[in-house]
Formats: sequence, C-alpha cells, structure tokens
Amino acid sequence: MLYLIGLGLSHETDITVRGLETVRKCERVYLEAYTSILMAADKESLEKFYGKEVILADRELVESGADQILKDADKVDVAFLVVGDVFGATTHTDLVIRANELNIPFESIHNASVMNAVGACGLQLYQFGQTVSLVFFTETWKPDSFYTKIMENRKIGLHTLLLLDIKVKEQSIENMARGRLIYEPPRYMDISTAAQQLLEIEEIRGEKAYTPDTPCVAVSRLGSPSQKFKAASLKELAEYDAGEPLHSLVMLGRQVHELELEYLYQFVDDKEKFKAFVEADQEFFKPPPYVPPEENFSD
Amino acid sequence: MLYLIGLGLSHETDITVRGLETVRKCERVYLEAYTSILMAADKESLEKFYGKEVILADRELVESGADQILKDADKVDVAFLVVGDVFGATTHTDLVIRANELNIPFESIHNASVMNAVGACGLQLYQFGQTVSLVFFTETWKPDSFYTKIMENRKIGLHTLLLLDIKVKEQSIENMARGRLIYEPPRYMDISTAAQQLLEIEEIRGEKAYTPDTPCVAVSRLGSPSQKFKAASLKELAEYDAGEPLHSLVMLGRQVHELELEYLYQFVDDKEKFKAFVEADQEFFKPPPYVPPEENFSD
Repeated sequence: MLYLIGLGLSHETDITVRGLETVRKCERVYLEAYTSILMAADKESLEKFYGKEVILADRELVESGADQILKDADKVDVAFLVVGDVFGATTHTDLVIRANELNIPFESIHNASVMNAVGACGLQLYQFGQTVSLVFFTETWKPDSFYTKIMENRKIGLHTLLLLDIKVKEQSIENMARGRLIYEPPRYMDISTAAQQLLEIEEIRGEKAYTPDTPCVAVSRLGSPSQKFKAASLKELAEYDAGEPLHSLVMLGRQVHELELEYLYQFVDDKEKFKAFVEADQEFFKPPPYVPPEENFSD
Repeated sequence: MLYLIGLGLSHETDITVRGLETVRKCERVYLEAYTSILMAADKESLEKFYGKEVILADRELVESGADQILKDADKVDVAFLVVGDVFGATTHTDLVIRANELNIPFESIHNASVMNAVGACGLQLYQFGQTVSLVFFTETWKPDSFYTKIMENRKIGLHTLLLLDIKVKEQSIENMARGRLIYEPPRYMDISTAAQQLLEIEEIRGEKAYTPDTPCVAVSRLGSPSQKFKAASLKELAEYDAGEPLHSLVMLGRQVHELELEYLYQFVDDKEKFKAFVEADQEFFKPPPYVPPEENFSD
C-alpha cells in the first residue's frame, strides 16, 4: 500500500495520530523535500520521533524516480510524507496516477495546509478566489501571470492568497550547464520582496489590479509557535521585515465583512489608517449601482 | 489558555499528535457539534480516546454562551474542538474576538478540512474560486445566492466547491413558535438533492451559469474509510445515490488541465462521454479570441 500522509505546517507533532501510526508500520518512509519545509522540524527530528529512517525525496527522485518510490508497494507499506496536505502539488497527483497504473492501492491521510490554515488571519476562507504563486524575479525573467488572476479575483470582490517562491536544492545556470550537481543555498521569498515585485508589475502593467494602498495581510510562519500576522497597505509591506520564513501574503478583496475587519484590527499599527485603506480600496471594481427596472405604464 | 483544535474529517485519530496532547492537559473540553460531524467517531468514542469528558457545544452555547466556555480560561486550559479546521465558521472567529476582549490568550492547532482535502479528487486547489453553500430549499424559500457566485467562478474558468447543508439540532417552526426545545432528526443534504436544486435554479434564472451537462464531481465521505468520488454531468448526479453522508459537490470550470482530467477518469462510468461533457462545457465563458494589435503603417 502507498500512503500519502500530510505533515501539517510546523512541528513533528503536527502529524495526525493516524498518520503517525501509519508511518510507524511502513517499510520505507519518503519525505518530499522540495515544495515546502516543516518550520520546526527536520529529517533528524522526524526520524527520532518516528523511530524510523526517513529518505529525502528531491525533485529528481519524485519526478523521474516514481518507480523507485513505488517499488514493491503492492507487497509492503510505503509512506510518502508531504508538508502541509497531500494534494498541494501536481507532482503528488502524478505519483498516484503511476501507482494506479501499477495496481498499487493507495490511501491519503490529510492534514492542514496554508490553503485552509490561512483562515487564522480572520479572513473567511469562502471569500477567497483562486490562489496565485509568486516566483523570484531575475533581471530578465519577471513572470506576471499572477497579475491577471489577482485582477479576476478582485473584480468579483474576493481575497487572494499569494504563495511565495521556495527554492530548495536548485542549481545555478552555470552548474546546470556543466552538469555539476552542486546546489545553491535554499531561498525563501519574504513578504517585502513579494510586495516589491507586486508593485513593480503594477507599475509596468498599470491596469490597477491593485494599488500601493491596497490592504494586505502578511502571514509569517503560519502554524508555528512564532506565527505572526501584519495587516497593512502593500506599500507598507514592501518595507516590512517579517522575520524568519515561511511567509505568505493575502491581498484583500472588496467584499470584506465587518467581522473580518474587526479581527484584522488586532494586526494593524493604526486602525484608522488601515480602515481608510480598506474604504479607498473598496472603490475599485465596484459593481454598477442598482437601477430598478422601468415600470411599464403603457397598459 | 483557550485552544482551538481542528479534528480533521473522520476518525478520532485524525486529530494531530499535538492536538491530542493538548486536549489531554485541558481542564474542560468542548466539541462544537452543529456545523459539521466527525464521520467515524462520536462523543463517546472521543471521550474514550481522550480519557476526558467532552461537552457538546450546540449553537445556543457557542453563540450566546461564549463567556461560559471561556470561564477561567485565563487560569486553566480550555479546549474547543472543531470538526475539520479551526476557522471554518464565523462563530469560531467570534469566540476568539471575545477571548481577546477578556485578555485570554489563545492558540490554534490546525487540521485538514474539506477546503483543502477536496484536492483528493484530483482537481488542483489553486484552480478553485470562491466556495459556496447550498441550503435545503423549502416550498417558499429557495435562496439562490450561490448562482451568481458559481457564474463568477465559471466566467474566469475556475472550479467551485459547493458545501451542502447540515441541519443538526434544528427546531420545527411549530416547536420554535411554541418555545418547545424539541429537535428534528439531523439532516444532511445529499448529492442528488444538491444537483436537483442547482438544476431548479438554472431553470428559473436561465442565465446559463451552468447546464444539465456541466461536468461535476460528487465527493462522498471525504477523508473517511469509505470515501468515494464520482465524476459525471450535473443531470446524472441528480439521479446518483452517493450513500451515507457527508457529501460535497465540485462543479468544474473551463480551465481543466490534462492532468486533472486524467485523474478524474478513475471516477467516471464512461470516459468518452465525460470527456464530451467537459469539451462542450468549455465552450461556455470562453474568452474572446486573441486579436493581434494592428500594426501602424502610417510612418
């Protein structure tokens, strides 16, 4: 049996009881180690907690070595551990499709991920539109597909969760070209970089998907002991030091409820100022005013 | 300290290890028992698993008795257990706001909820728009605010998660009028009722937010041992018996990827037929074709 097991967000003990029982009975335990990280645990602390060896699965292994992971999984139990929940990345869907082809049964054991835990900032999950990803810009490559998606969300009044780039075990272009398996140190995009990149693209596109004054929530180390939220304008967050990774960002939509706003006030420097940002931002993408249907006096 | 602890979706053992350790050290343990249910556990099995008394918190207690729940929580530890994740319902946000007012510190311990676990059907979470809720229609009350929201999602190509009504500890109108605390048996909306209500509203509104042929995924008992997915047209699902609760429904958007489709084929009766539904549905809300900018020959 193949078990896909979500690890949650931060601690070794964020695994579910059922997840832990399952890991302990598995013959081999892989940890997917390139789309995210556990903030308060590492390979060694997990191995100690599980009483098991943990095999780090990097991108090469997961994307090209699926058959190695699935070896004998029709006869023995294999666990594939994923930070957050199980189906956060398309690569995991791939693994299940491959298991199906090989007639290997599988079960998933779910856990929290940023996609639902972000509700902890006080914004209601059902008011979020599509989630977007921000990757590190380079001098020559500034992918901005997030811009249209944020615009689409905001046109219908919804909040947007922005997931920030994580670069783990990446090669430099030079090392890649020379086929050298030397990896760069890990990099995690921070809030201020994300806000600056957003402002840069608004400057270029100029379609007012958002403005420097659009209210946002900086989410740092969600689910960890040092979790923190900061509600401020995009421009303010471009200067904000959110501390250690991991970070995410939420951009508010027009449909912000009183209760959501009241909750966010815990995380602002200046309540009146933040409220003014929210009110100004609500002028964007307003639906046209309601015009009552003309009455028909002709008969 | 007030602890808000997510219980996940189904088993007693779906609680996280950290959640369980926390419950066991708490003086009082409340279980929010009206917005959802654990599918493979009840009060008795939870009490046995925790080695603790569990107090059922119904709507009256949570909405009017917050101070009772929070009593002495500045001195002793109190756990408030929520099926799924912690911030699924606005009432829980209310409880935290009240705790803040009383200077009671709080911590949340997250878990899986339908909002992220629905990724198990193979549709990518970042391709979902806003989540909508469907309530039981009566003869005279057929709230259809979901219709505009589905339309908004589908106009930009996104999938929609539909949460189906749960009625636990509800009074009949007669009993309510007479002030009798007699409750109706619990009711859980099933897939076929949901699909029928959707078709009924499309019939009335006629704006083609979706059609009887729009492809959907029936999600039954997500995260439980008998979890099941069924991919079919809305009309087909109106006749589908999805078995025991809980059920949810996903309506596909136009932007369905090859990989998503390949995964869904596991859950169809007839692959070619389902593919035809998807292709026909993709004709709705198509963006206008790209017209290259006119070249300026004047100079």
